[in-house]
Amino acid sequence: MKIIIAGGDGFCGWPTALYLSKQGHDVSILDNGLRREWDKELGSNSLTPIASLEERVACWRNLTGETLHTFIGDLTDYTFLNHTLNQVRPDVFVHFGEQRSAPYSMIDREHAVFTQTNNVVGTLNVIYAIKEIVPDCHIIKLGTMGEYGTPNIDIEEGYIKIQHKGREDVLPFPKQPGSMYHLSKVHDSHNLMFAARAWGLRVTDLNQGIVYGLHTDETKLDPILVNRLDYDGVFGTALNRFLIQAAIGHDLTVYGEGGQTRGFLNIADTVRCIEIAALHPADPGEFRVFNQFTQEFSVLDLAKKVQKISKEEGYQIDIAHIENPRFEKETHYYKASHTKLIELGLSPHLLTDEILRGIFRTVIQYKDRVLRDNMLPKIKW
Amino acid sequence: MKIIIAGGDGFCGWPTALYLSKQGHDVSILDNGLRREWDKELGSNSLTPIASLEERVACWRNLTGETLHTFIGDLTDYTFLNHTLNQVRPDVFVHFGEQRSAPYSMIDREHAVFTQTNNVVGTLNVIYAIKEIVPDCHIIKLGTMGEYGTPNIDIEEGYIKIQHKGREDVLPFPKQPGSMYHLSKVHDSHNLMFAARAWGLRVTDLNQGIVYGLHTDETKLDPILVNRLDYDGVFGTALNRFLIQAAIGHDLTVYGEGGQTRGFLNIADTVRCIEIAALHPADPGEFRVFNQFTQEFSVLDLAKKVQKISKEEGYQIDIAHIENPRFEKETHYYKASHTKLIELGLSPHLLTDEILRGIFRTVIQYKDRVLRDNMLPKIKW
Repeated sequence: MKIIIAGGDGFCGWPTALYLSKQGHDVSILDNGLRREWDKELGSNSLTPIASLEERVACWRNLTGETLHTFIGDLTDYTFLNHTLNQVRPDVFVHFGEQRSAPYSMIDREHAVFTQTNNVVGTLNVIYAIKEIVPDCHIIKLGTMGEYGTPNIDIEEGYIKIQHKGREDVLPFPKQPGSMYHLSKVHDSHNLMFAARAWGLRVTDLNQGIVYGLHTDETKLDPILVNRLDYDGVFGTALNRFLIQAAIGHDLTVYGEGGQTRGFLNIADTVRCIEIAALHPADPGEFRVFNQFTQEFSVLDLAKKVQKISKEEGYQIDIAHIENPRFEKETHYYKASHTKLIELGLSPHLLTDEILRGIFRTVIQYKDRVLRDNMLPKIKW
Repeated sequence: MKIIIAGGDGFCGWPTALYLSKQGHDVSILDNGLRREWDKELGSNSLTPIASLEERVACWRNLTGETLHTFIGDLTDYTFLNHTLNQVRPDVFVHFGEQRSAPYSMIDREHAVFTQTNNVVGTLNVIYAIKEIVPDCHIIKLGTMGEYGTPNIDIEEGYIKIQHKGREDVLPFPKQPGSMYHLSKVHDSHNLMFAARAWGLRVTDLNQGIVYGLHTDETKLDPILVNRLDYDGVFGTALNRFLIQAAIGHDLTVYGEGGQTRGFLNIADTVRCIEIAALHPADPGEFRVFNQFTQEFSVLDLAKKVQKISKEEGYQIDIAHIENPRFEKETHYYKASHTKLIELGLSPHLLTDEILRGIFRTVIQYKDRVLRDNMLPKIKW
């Protein structure tokens, strides 16, 4: 299949591009390079030293003989997007190309407006370009489990059957997102649902949990192919951030009580989930939602797991409950359905001590690159 | 109370400004003049000849001695908005200031992107400016009943109690909007709900039905104060458009079967609903939703009512079922709750033959201004 990966230079997009290329697909990366610019803006870095996209692509070509086509530009630039789609004429458009940090979106008004404009307009452009140029192309859009918030009922995959006053309907699952970023994803979901139904587009919305790990079989092949790894208070996420804190002897910073429970998955499962969605496209007119995670953990559970592993590796680390910088419930019910990707063939890489130890040992190699000042949350809402 | 009315030069905003001024409030109109520009863009006009905002305000001052302060600028311009709020320091911010036509938003990609960017960024700016400058100010935001779509269950006012797998929660009512415009309103609602809960803002979201009529007691006082009246395929809405079609001997253009059922209200009730919401503010942190309409009708019902009235007035008019330009169900279940404004004191102006006749006779006076070519829908989705 001909596959475009928007955001193909990022943490999820890059390993997905390699994996799909390895499976024999004709992969094009579309990226605006903004993720690297945000490191400069925030004075942060990837724990791993990442090569430029040009070096990455050249390395992959040398190793495998496969070409990853690159299109450098912005989804909010319709002329560029139109040109790219006309040139590639993709069967699948994988859309990782958004600003994906909740804290970044909450820095101030400008960052909130940027995040919503960037994500919503980029996705609107994808919708219109595909409708105009390749209407049968399957859009695989990355959403987030954070769209649902933490309702006091079980979370279903996109839709819920509601019985009310003697009548019944299957309706979009109500959304209660907790940041300007998460809100932008909810807006995208509504726009995509409309586009699928009104215009017959094929859309899969992958409500992804929090991704941990960094390596996949492909990114390990050469140091030039290494994936980025974020640990700072803005782009770093739970588990990965804890592992890096442990590696440098920093307290594990649990926000508040730590009862916040979320869905998690290994980066190795992210790339496989995209392949599964691509191999089983949504029907024309279908807006299909999969919850893309494999296990649920509370933040405190994860901190304890990391504490245990690091102790076994000879690092004695404390857990620090710091003031929660976010507006969120610290104890709540959480149970979310996630069977659809399993039914289509996903075999999860579950979080074992061995996997945690593997990430920890990798992280240890790079620990001298950590900027300690960036570790704590500075953005509050 | 000091009240800002964003969009105070428009069809709903202008009579609201007059009405609230009449009740003794200190009213400021914030408007960018775009609604008048869209007439030029589309080659359309208001059925009624409308004076400039300056003339309108001067006339009101001469008649009543009351000053409507004016702030000419755009909500997407944060500097302007910030300056205005600092100067006025309002108790209430009434937000009519959005692109409000579904067909306009569906003209093409540019108009879709404009509508969503304009509405979402304008509302985000209102949120941030109020949070920063007057955090106790009550935001009264105009939503639309179209946010809900046409579910097969009763529509509640913003929230619904859902029982699911032995558990229960009260959650935001699921939204299924049917155009890029309606989607923009759903995005606004989610953003406002978050802002209320995270930052303690006071927010009332008025999901308004389709407004008919043009005069209020205040707009009738002088021809310079007359309200605008849209009849074209882009900004004209059912009922008002039918009345104008009847006045010029045009078939009543029912889209498809005409079983589309919606909530309707008289413009005289719109202005009163805003006052009621203002007099009973939402609590800090509360995102309150009222369904603002008084009666439900199918489009075909309305056409028949107009046909009957116009026949009595000596005009023999046919009903034409034309191809539906929209993606929507033409027969469906529809029942929506609308008791909260009634409980707070709304006494509806229900749609009687007398009221219809009154609007019809007013419309007749201006019928020579009708541009017949603009009557039919040209924008399809």
